[in-house]
Amino acid sequence: MKPVRVGICGLGTVGGGTFNVLTRNADEITRRAGRPIVIEQVAHRSLNPACDLTGIRTTNDVFEVASNPDVDVVVELIGGYDLARDLVLTAIENGKHVVTANKALIAVHGNEIFKAAHQKGVIVAFEAAVAGGIPVIKSLREGLGANRISWVAGIINGTGNYILTHMRDEGRAFEDVLAEAQALGYAESDPTFDVEGIDAAHKLTILASIAYGVPLQFDKAYTEGISRVTAEDVEQADNLGYIIKHLGISKRTDSGLELRVHPTLIPKERLLASVHGVKNAIAVMGDAVGPTLYYGAGAGAEPTASAVVADLLDVARDISTEHRYRTPYLAFGGITENGESLPIMPMEDIITAYYLRLLAVDRPGVLARVASILSEEGISIEALIQQEATEGELVPIILMTHRTQERNMNEAIRRIESLADIAGSVTRIRVESLDEE
Amino acid sequence: MKPVRVGICGLGTVGGGTFNVLTRNADEITRRAGRPIVIEQVAHRSLNPACDLTGIRTTNDVFEVASNPDVDVVVELIGGYDLARDLVLTAIENGKHVVTANKALIAVHGNEIFKAAHQKGVIVAFEAAVAGGIPVIKSLREGLGANRISWVAGIINGTGNYILTHMRDEGRAFEDVLAEAQALGYAESDPTFDVEGIDAAHKLTILASIAYGVPLQFDKAYTEGISRVTAEDVEQADNLGYIIKHLGISKRTDSGLELRVHPTLIPKERLLASVHGVKNAIAVMGDAVGPTLYYGAGAGAEPTASAVVADLLDVARDISTEHRYRTPYLAFGGITENGESLPIMPMEDIITAYYLRLLAVDRPGVLARVASILSEEGISIEALIQQEATEGELVPIILMTHRTQERNMNEAIRRIESLADIAGSVTRIRVESLDEE
Repeated sequence: MKPVRVGICGLGTVGGGTFNVLTRNADEITRRAGRPIVIEQVAHRSLNPACDLTGIRTTNDVFEVASNPDVDVVVELIGGYDLARDLVLTAIENGKHVVTANKALIAVHGNEIFKAAHQKGVIVAFEAAVAGGIPVIKSLREGLGANRISWVAGIINGTGNYILTHMRDEGRAFEDVLAEAQALGYAESDPTFDVEGIDAAHKLTILASIAYGVPLQFDKAYTEGISRVTAEDVEQADNLGYIIKHLGISKRTDSGLELRVHPTLIPKERLLASVHGVKNAIAVMGDAVGPTLYYGAGAGAEPTASAVVADLLDVARDISTEHRYRTPYLAFGGITENGESLPIMPMEDIITAYYLRLLAVDRPGVLARVASILSEEGISIEALIQQEATEGELVPIILMTHRTQERNMNEAIRRIESLADIAGSVTRIRVESLDEE
Repeated sequence: MKPVRVGICGLGTVGGGTFNVLTRNADEITRRAGRPIVIEQVAHRSLNPACDLTGIRTTNDVFEVASNPDVDVVVELIGGYDLARDLVLTAIENGKHVVTANKALIAVHGNEIFKAAHQKGVIVAFEAAVAGGIPVIKSLREGLGANRISWVAGIINGTGNYILTHMRDEGRAFEDVLAEAQALGYAESDPTFDVEGIDAAHKLTILASIAYGVPLQFDKAYTEGISRVTAEDVEQADNLGYIIKHLGISKRTDSGLELRVHPTLIPKERLLASVHGVKNAIAVMGDAVGPTLYYGAGAGAEPTASAVVADLLDVARDISTEHRYRTPYLAFGGITENGESLPIMPMEDIITAYYLRLLAVDRPGVLARVASILSEEGISIEALIQQEATEGELVPIILMTHRTQERNMNEAIRRIESLADIAGSVTRIRVESLDEE
């Protein structure tokens, strides 16, 4: 069969990895795809020393690739929002299939892109946009297609997990480990996207859309990063049998979908608690299959390329036929018509358990006042640790609560913080058992 | 689009689960598949009280389903070898697509079945044959399609993992936990297939074929069960920082493919070491993606049904086109032509590290004689534990070796067992680091 001709736009980390994997594993890829997948053109701004471009047609204009009549599939690896959006929409308009690793693009502009692709009958594939090389999009969209998904919870930002792992293993502070991660190249010089949870929220938005069959709604995701997690919280969680992970969580409830990214205490015995360093893992609960988990490298040149090339394989297999969108982009057909029945819930409506840490003046009655506020807000206490201190000193109080609505907890925290004997603000970290609830 | 019409053959545990999942989740499945998947006929020998067959056409003859002109897909869930083979070949001959959960059938008769299916242009899908609801076949065949796979190692028998988990957690003997597992329904009254590794070898055979693009060669798999693992070995492994798991392991080496099932010491910090009870997990190493892992329920009515129905979804999507075998049955095209270049290695050619436990008469010089035999066979010792005993008593010696060829170890064990001061036979358990070697 004739080859599938690929145009790679962007030759940075992921572009270079994709170029090299397609080249190195060409024989195996051809046997799997049933036809060769060849690099027809590469658009790049600067040279990638890892790539040998001998004999490859190159350009510095990505739009030249999008309009090249010899290109069947445009691989968008330039990143960012606006230029990437223009490139992808132009490629679609020209009847090209698109493969992208761009989570921001899909989370923010995906609905528009899929609509355009559907009209033109082309494939848009984005396995690499979530959790790098882990085939979690395919697993959710196809492998678990029999299931009504009840929740998805994932460690989907390697930088954040690297920092939390080292904070825990070495008892170090956030800022300290962040600086080290930056020096090692695991964190950007501006780490906001990673440590404030924006990157994870992009990925969670995509996972939720595929899991439940709802439109992409990044603007409704609740996003909280790890920059305020302290070494003390990490240690207290450990004492209580928990580990703090930065999770993206989406649950189906009777009131709609939860869509939230935040530091989370999870029991140490969960498999997710054993996912360390820059690795990613996603746990998925389906009504038929029960709990499943997918683990691997969430970033890096070749792990991400692995997912890009898997998408190219799917494209190669699909365009052997006239059927141009065999699997719905977002797993379900007719998402825009049917998706509205599952609204994304406001954060104050979600229900979860909580870890609280407060600093109190060690005077009789403080604990009673805190407990009575929680009780009045309908919140019951599961565990309490009050450390010893000299009379009059500030003493930390650690509380674990049972599940309650975030609205009640917000009010309780507001009232606790207004007590005269409580110093500063209350630290609140959500707790998820991740059992089969 | 018109429905895909399914004939379910067998209404036992998995058949009943498949019936119920297709019925309960019909709306979501239709949205994902782009067309309804309806149960046209059910063949069963006895009633399954979990299933409401009202309005369903039933028969007690599976071949009636295979020749029913209103059935598009035959779902083979009767198990076993001969009748299942006849049923599947008849269905293929009649132009039906086939979905099966039967690992024994695929591992032993798969080459013949895929050849027949290829000639008739029909799909044969078997996700449920390996690791129940975990979409590991799809992940290997499609999600990791960019990779040259270097090894696969999996906990792929839930009964065996249940027994090893309880032996370790409770310090109990194999026979004791087996009896409990039988009472709880986790083990069959004749547990041979599970505890002697035959079931795991069936599954490993299938995984290896898909990972490397080689024909199914169950007869060349090395199979060793867990029935000789003792509570003492479990405890000694724990002291050394390892856990004993019953693994199916297949590695690509310069000499060919390793294909082996046996108890294995793995480091406690590996994610596989945290997979407990009846759960399954498969670790896969690809050259681009690095290490990945897939975890979930490896058996049970609805977890297995989850995989059966995922295959039905794939069939539904594929037969919307004229292209009847979009993805090669065993991941690669032309397996019979190209597969022979990777022979399955005889067990004595494999290279691994070893745990040895021997009982010695506690006399001076015993250890020196054992060490010199190992040295003469080119085997170096990594760790040694000799427990104290009264002079003249039998004392256990625990040895961990570096990697060596199994042939050398066989010879060393033969020589050690012939020493006058060694009592009985040497316990040998293989050790795998499962790192990125």
